[in-house]
Amino acid sequence: MPQATVTAALVVIGNEILSGRTRDVNVAYLARQLTAMGINLAEVRMVRDEERAIIAAVNTLRAAHDYVFTTGGIGPTHDDITCEAVARAFNLPYRVNPEAKRILEAFYEGTGRELNEARMRMAHTPEGASLIDNPVSGAPGFRVENVHVLAGIPAVMRGMFESVAPTLEGGRTVKSREVAVLLGEGDVAARLEALQERYPALEIGSYPFVRDGAFGTTLVLRGTDEDEIARAAGELCAALRDLGGEPELPPAPPAPIG
Amino acid sequence: MPQATVTAALVVIGNEILSGRTRDVNVAYLARQLTAMGINLAEVRMVRDEERAIIAAVNTLRAAHDYVFTTGGIGPTHDDITCEAVARAFNLPYRVNPEAKRILEAFYEGTGRELNEARMRMAHTPEGASLIDNPVSGAPGFRVENVHVLAGIPAVMRGMFESVAPTLEGGRTVKSREVAVLLGEGDVAARLEALQERYPALEIGSYPFVRDGAFGTTLVLRGTDEDEIARAAGELCAALRDLGGEPELPPAPPAPIG
Repeated sequence: MPQATVTAALVVIGNEILSGRTRDVNVAYLARQLTAMGINLAEVRMVRDEERAIIAAVNTLRAAHDYVFTTGGIGPTHDDITCEAVARAFNLPYRVNPEAKRILEAFYEGTGRELNEARMRMAHTPEGASLIDNPVSGAPGFRVENVHVLAGIPAVMRGMFESVAPTLEGGRTVKSREVAVLLGEGDVAARLEALQERYPALEIGSYPFVRDGAFGTTLVLRGTDEDEIARAAGELCAALRDLGGEPELPPAPPAPIG
Repeated sequence: MPQATVTAALVVIGNEILSGRTRDVNVAYLARQLTAMGINLAEVRMVRDEERAIIAAVNTLRAAHDYVFTTGGIGPTHDDITCEAVARAFNLPYRVNPEAKRILEAFYEGTGRELNEARMRMAHTPEGASLIDNPVSGAPGFRVENVHVLAGIPAVMRGMFESVAPTLEGGRTVKSREVAVLLGEGDVAARLEALQERYPALEIGSYPFVRDGAFGTTLVLRGTDEDEIARAAGELCAALRDLGGEPELPPAPPAPIG
């Protein structure tokens, strides 16, 4: 039987995210993937390309969670400092990894692009790191203990995550069920709180939306026991009807993200 | 003359972000707004709706930065615990704020929606907090010292941020200039590093892209001195031509975010 709770944290590294130049899309992708595997993404930190900030985030989070992922800062230019910072976080030498070097040599051969000194940065890892296959652009990510160092470019990050996913052990999978109703959050709050008290093992969330000028609320029930979720959803729908609402089961309206 | 460096941090609060149900869009908005005001967004933490996690993030970040913003968790339901957690972070009583109560009374009057006990949660603040106007949906945010507590729903958060913005003091505004070139990052890396060494006050970033199957790199020069940026951009373009590239000044291709 899988562990009840497996947690992960993510460190998003890059000035371009914090200046607003680039909009991060990796958090949402990893959040969905990890959740589907029964791994609870507990925390995300976004930091600048600064060694101290990277080291502090990696060391705090790897001690607190089963898995840590980093995205960004592993390319060939001077502002790509993630690999060296992770080596320092683990007090490991930062060296050419012979396997990474072979992968890069094979990747650049015949491309007209040269495996120069800058690109050789991408052949360096903390000593003893395991490589993470990059099916998109050659240069591998790597893992040291529970820390997985991935690229920042979304397509490359996804390819690397897919390489890593089979090695991760999830906990019990969290199922969720949504119910939407055209009642305000404040109208359903008391019933919802009572339901939460009756079902302490479920995580019950409430998210407002506006549809054609009317206020509505999407209620999300999450937990590992589908029968329990179904029972709670039944009670919830009864309570919503009691308040004069017409509960709609999926497809629910999209969350207000715009 | 404004302070040279003003920094801010953001705490994004909500299980729905970390489960992947809702994609955060507030980081990108606040990053752009703060950057434009000369406020350096140094760090973002995304945490679950858990009191300990919120308190730890708020207390660490408010000690380290000029401004802290939180988004999410200030509605009327049981999972909205941000306000009380911020009160605990400051060791302040969490009470009905008479001004907030008046605002809510006026907002709900005649709407057919009742200012019930659940909605009265939104009239509570840490004692002595200043309110932040919510032009969208009534219930105000608030500020305690350097911590600004905003809504999570993007339209409401933006309205609140616009209310707050005139009270923030920015540092020197950071200007940026982008140059795109159809050369790989690894081809430009050495020249770029040399340029960074000659212009230590500038932040020089490098972001790869693919256009019609060809590899390209967008180079971003950021700093507070426009003349310095222009000089560095001139040297950069000369170096790129020297490498056989044709530097394109804006409009640059979009960053690879998809």
